[in-house]
Amino acid sequence: MKIEKRWIVSFAIISITAITALFWKNEEIAPNINEFLSEDKIVGADVAWILTASGLVLLMTPGLSFFYGGMVRQKNVISTMLQSFIALGVISIFWVVIGFSLSFGESLGFKINGIHYGIFGNPFSYPFFNKVGSLPHKDLAPTIPFILFALFQMKFAVITPALITGSFAERVRFISYLVFMVLFSLFIYCPLCHMIWYPDGLLNKYFGIKDFAGGTVVHMSAGFAALAGALFLGKRKNLDHQPSNIPFVILGTGMLWFGWFGFNAGSALAANSTAAMAFGTTTIASGAAMITWIFFDRINGRKVSAMGACIGAVVGLVAITPAAGFISISESIFVGFISAVVSNLIMNWKKLKKIDDTLDVFACHGVGGIMGMILTAILAHGKNASLLHGGFSVFLHHMTALILVSLFTFFGAILLYKITDFIIPLRVSEDSEKIGLDLSQHGENLSI
Amino acid sequence: MKIEKRWIVSFAIISITAITALFWKNEEIAPNINEFLSEDKIVGADVAWILTASGLVLLMTPGLSFFYGGMVRQKNVISTMLQSFIALGVISIFWVVIGFSLSFGESLGFKINGIHYGIFGNPFSYPFFNKVGSLPHKDLAPTIPFILFALFQMKFAVITPALITGSFAERVRFISYLVFMVLFSLFIYCPLCHMIWYPDGLLNKYFGIKDFAGGTVVHMSAGFAALAGALFLGKRKNLDHQPSNIPFVILGTGMLWFGWFGFNAGSALAANSTAAMAFGTTTIASGAAMITWIFFDRINGRKVSAMGACIGAVVGLVAITPAAGFISISESIFVGFISAVVSNLIMNWKKLKKIDDTLDVFACHGVGGIMGMILTAILAHGKNASLLHGGFSVFLHHMTALILVSLFTFFGAILLYKITDFIIPLRVSEDSEKIGLDLSQHGENLSI
Amino acid sequence: MKIEKRWIVSFAIISITAITALFWKNEEIAPNINEFLSEDKIVGADVAWILTASGLVLLMTPGLSFFYGGMVRQKNVISTMLQSFIALGVISIFWVVIGFSLSFGESLGFKINGIHYGIFGNPFSYPFFNKVGSLPHKDLAPTIPFILFALFQMKFAVITPALITGSFAERVRFISYLVFMVLFSLFIYCPLCHMIWYPDGLLNKYFGIKDFAGGTVVHMSAGFAALAGALFLGKRKNLDHQPSNIPFVILGTGMLWFGWFGFNAGSALAANSTAAMAFGTTTIASGAAMITWIFFDRINGRKVSAMGACIGAVVGLVAITPAAGFISISESIFVGFISAVVSNLIMNWKKLKKIDDTLDVFACHGVGGIMGMILTAILAHGKNASLLHGGFSVFLHHMTALILVSLFTFFGAILLYKITDFIIPLRVSEDSEKIGLDLSQHGENLSI
Repeated sequence: MKIEKRWIVSFAIISITAITALFWKNEEIAPNINEFLSEDKIVGADVAWILTASGLVLLMTPGLSFFYGGMVRQKNVISTMLQSFIALGVISIFWVVIGFSLSFGESLGFKINGIHYGIFGNPFSYPFFNKVGSLPHKDLAPTIPFILFALFQMKFAVITPALITGSFAERVRFISYLVFMVLFSLFIYCPLCHMIWYPDGLLNKYFGIKDFAGGTVVHMSAGFAALAGALFLGKRKNLDHQPSNIPFVILGTGMLWFGWFGFNAGSALAANSTAAMAFGTTTIASGAAMITWIFFDRINGRKVSAMGACIGAVVGLVAITPAAGFISISESIFVGFISAVVSNLIMNWKKLKKIDDTLDVFACHGVGGIMGMILTAILAHGKNASLLHGGFSVFLHHMTALILVSLFTFFGAILLYKITDFIIPLRVSEDSEKIGLDLSQHGENLSI
Repeated sequence: MKIEKRWIVSFAIISITAITALFWKNEEIAPNINEFLSEDKIVGADVAWILTASGLVLLMTPGLSFFYGGMVRQKNVISTMLQSFIALGVISIFWVVIGFSLSFGESLGFKINGIHYGIFGNPFSYPFFNKVGSLPHKDLAPTIPFILFALFQMKFAVITPALITGSFAERVRFISYLVFMVLFSLFIYCPLCHMIWYPDGLLNKYFGIKDFAGGTVVHMSAGFAALAGALFLGKRKNLDHQPSNIPFVILGTGMLWFGWFGFNAGSALAANSTAAMAFGTTTIASGAAMITWIFFDRINGRKVSAMGACIGAVVGLVAITPAAGFISISESIFVGFISAVVSNLIMNWKKLKKIDDTLDVFACHGVGGIMGMILTAILAHGKNASLLHGGFSVFLHHMTALILVSLFTFFGAILLYKITDFIIPLRVSEDSEKIGLDLSQHGENLSI
Repeated sequence: MKIEKRWIVSFAIISITAITALFWKNEEIAPNINEFLSEDKIVGADVAWILTASGLVLLMTPGLSFFYGGMVRQKNVISTMLQSFIALGVISIFWVVIGFSLSFGESLGFKINGIHYGIFGNPFSYPFFNKVGSLPHKDLAPTIPFILFALFQMKFAVITPALITGSFAERVRFISYLVFMVLFSLFIYCPLCHMIWYPDGLLNKYFGIKDFAGGTVVHMSAGFAALAGALFLGKRKNLDHQPSNIPFVILGTGMLWFGWFGFNAGSALAANSTAAMAFGTTTIASGAAMITWIFFDRINGRKVSAMGACIGAVVGLVAITPAAGFISISESIFVGFISAVVSNLIMNWKKLKKIDDTLDVFACHGVGGIMGMILTAILAHGKNASLLHGGFSVFLHHMTALILVSLFTFFGAILLYKITDFIIPLRVSEDSEKIGLDLSQHGENLSI
């Protein structure tokens, strides 16, 4: 087998990264006025919970492997699983080297009326996790070591590109996907993360966007990038298929649900009542969406199915994510219900069916994320915090931001697909697609 | 496909619930003498552990999907899995709306000699989790937010009806099962939970029943309802079958074991030595039961099997549940050993074999629960706490309660099956059974 | 079926153990100067995290079932899974009865210049977990109940023999493996554990060996015992095979990775920054090794495969284990990278290929463990702690110990295989091997 240059470059990149990392000198850090607190500010209980939560969020990525892997045709199961799983390698290293700095480094942006609004973080703030250690960061997470905050956030960065893969499953070239994944993180995920979650970020500071655990940062961005991907790559040659392994879908859903507690309740960054409330809204919205989905399927003439129950549950989880810590348990029932209905309608909308979004990522994550963002702007508790609590302008800001984020992630993704495609074609050959990506890309297959 | 009225009613119920939930006004709560402590009484470490434990107990339900799903014939795998999984939707919502109130609301019951004995909770205590929020409840869980206690308890309510499904697997109608599940929770689970775990509950206050983590509430009740179900539905048309996917059974057992740490060690409701002891007795009883089961199988002329190891481990987990926090590690070896022997004998008892309890739920959970209740009454530590510690009357009370609970759950379940069957027939048609529930109920099948 | 005496003996052993355990009288323990602290020294947050971590480490054993089970031929999947899974039963009970005492009991050994060096623990220190209860042990784990420390350590003892099984998979007799497993724990694992982790242990006190989370104790010992096993049992009759279920390998890897957070970050025995750092180095080394492995495969003319990604990830996890709490995040990238390259080279080294180590346990765990031990001795932070930090003699000590441990575990294992083989032949008959161990040993098979 001839070894293409692209693989030699790939190995060279990881080699150079590893050797640079070995000789990298981290600065000594000490508590200081601007950035770090002293180690005695660490709260053990918060550390215990965020360690656990970070582990839980890691498990979501293998969970997604099974959720997606069980839905594709048998000849593409392994490749689909690997597309999610590999993000644990690629994005983790990317995050340490530069991603975390771009997301949470010193804010770079512009000024309006003398006030700074951040677009992305300074890549030289924390390269190779420089200064990311035991001391808690004053603003970002004052009760846990900064390293733990960085790791917790890393798992979010890992799962986002993995979520996208469902839309172009069964036809994407593996190495091109790796390139796209890095570009997406670099130019879409990290800036969006900075704009929404960094105290000085534009969408946070100017628009006042509330996103408790990543409905906008993770799910909307993945959803629109998925839509762009399905459009850019075009339809599969053969659209007809049944999910090949529904038990895997059930397993994946269970792992996602379990891991989502880390995702949402962990986003309180402490073992406190906010975490407990977020845990509750998460599981209740998911439960409500699950049964809404199957009943709604049934009154529309479809059978009650395990697939429906799983997809419904995940839609509920997506929709509650931005609102998780801001609303009551009873309101979360409604969030699950209405998101399931809307998402179900859109998934079965004929026009959208013309786009070959293989595993309906847009209808699940995109629409779920949009619903979550809207509902947060309607329901979030607190004085003037949302439409129902006297915050009409907050609501308008959210709607404006929703449009901006949609445009940014959709057209940004289109551009990055073009660039990737220019470097290495994104789509496999017709033959490779026909025999399936498992065999053509990885030389592996399901023996049974 | 004609849409039957029953599905329209189902969708109407979830719609009305969701809309009511949206407009539900929760009372403001404040610390007070009778019920709630102030928020500063919350202990972070306990919150961290119970958040984790609640997540672990959630994972048991997908675990059960695999434990049961791997045991049935290939044409019923998905439907069996869904029967467990769907409980995460149905019972979660039920619990928020009314179940938690019925279990832990203000005690309703009767008086003997001026002393109140509770039978069930006031359904108007916490409808839609009204008043279930950040403040800890003085009596039920004084160091964690009340919402967290309610969520931890919810996971127990979720898994109990799921446990039952193994007995009538391969022949039950899905919608009828949903109806039964709600009736069972309403009339059996919630009152039993109140009577045993509420301070004023009859079995707790009058009989002094010790049930650390739900041996009686969860496993005995599920076991007897399962026995009733197998009898009520009658035998399958074709009894001959091999488990279709033993790796799934192993996976399910692993998930159950892992989750059970949340179930048992979480029942200490704190991150303390009781939790650590319960963790230990749990895993040791399970380990002992696992190897006892396979050796006992072998000396009875059966092969040492993975199925045996898995069933043995689960029997050990069931049996230790009520005793987990009350006995020593060395005693837990004996609990695992003796429960495995008795449960194995009963599973292979010819008379019981005449009843078509598809996956031996009664022999596992019923007998395991009974053994646990008896052994707790024999071994529990503490002055006069059990037979071996000077508590002969405690032992007698346990035996009386054992009989009462058995009768209540068995005949209660029979009655609820009758009611369900009257509303919608419980059993599928002969044809549907023959082609398998996956296809007939859900239009899905394993492509491999 | 005739019942061989060996099974009657097996059942007798568990029966006698259980009955002895029932009547075992544990000593009352009280805080004292030498051994135990009072209960108020317990730190809740540490308990919360170590409870979680212990659960996570338990999950690694079912994880290993899937990691190995997916790699073997279809006729050996269940038996391979059971070989890992059964360790949860056998070693748990062994640990309670005697293993924990041998590992962490009062140090027995010899004196040089009046200084004591420990070889193994006194078996009468904590038989049946006597004195292992609520009070924290002063030296071993001063902030958590001693029982929790004993349980956390138990999970390490459980997984070690399970790791070995990969090397002699597809041809070992089940009962002989059980015997070997106990002998290995008794004569290799427990003494090694004592020598490295007990304060007075020889390798700790004299050689100053650093092993944060078990690179030497767990992975090197398993790796060399695996190599010995493959040599002792000889080659399979038919070497040609493809992994039968790659999704299971992916699932197993995900479970291992998730569980490894408990393994490594839990080894800090506290919810503190060391735990957070160890969490970070663990996931980053694993991610780096994963992508290094697939790129290195590719530039050597092999395809990028899911199997490669999984094996690479596990090699990274193994290699970082001894170093996890001692190095920086950026250094962990290098650890993952270089270990993946070396392990990949050795796995594909023709000479080693002549030995039929079925699932390459030596190349993964042995080499990973060796790399970890060397890299720890090169990179560990702290004054004179390693080669790069002025500790040349520490480095030499590590290299000497590396050779000693290799010889001890390899030849020790050979001897134990001989003893086992003398009691009950280790290898199944040729016929049994041909029809597969699932059917021949357990009477079970994959119906699909």
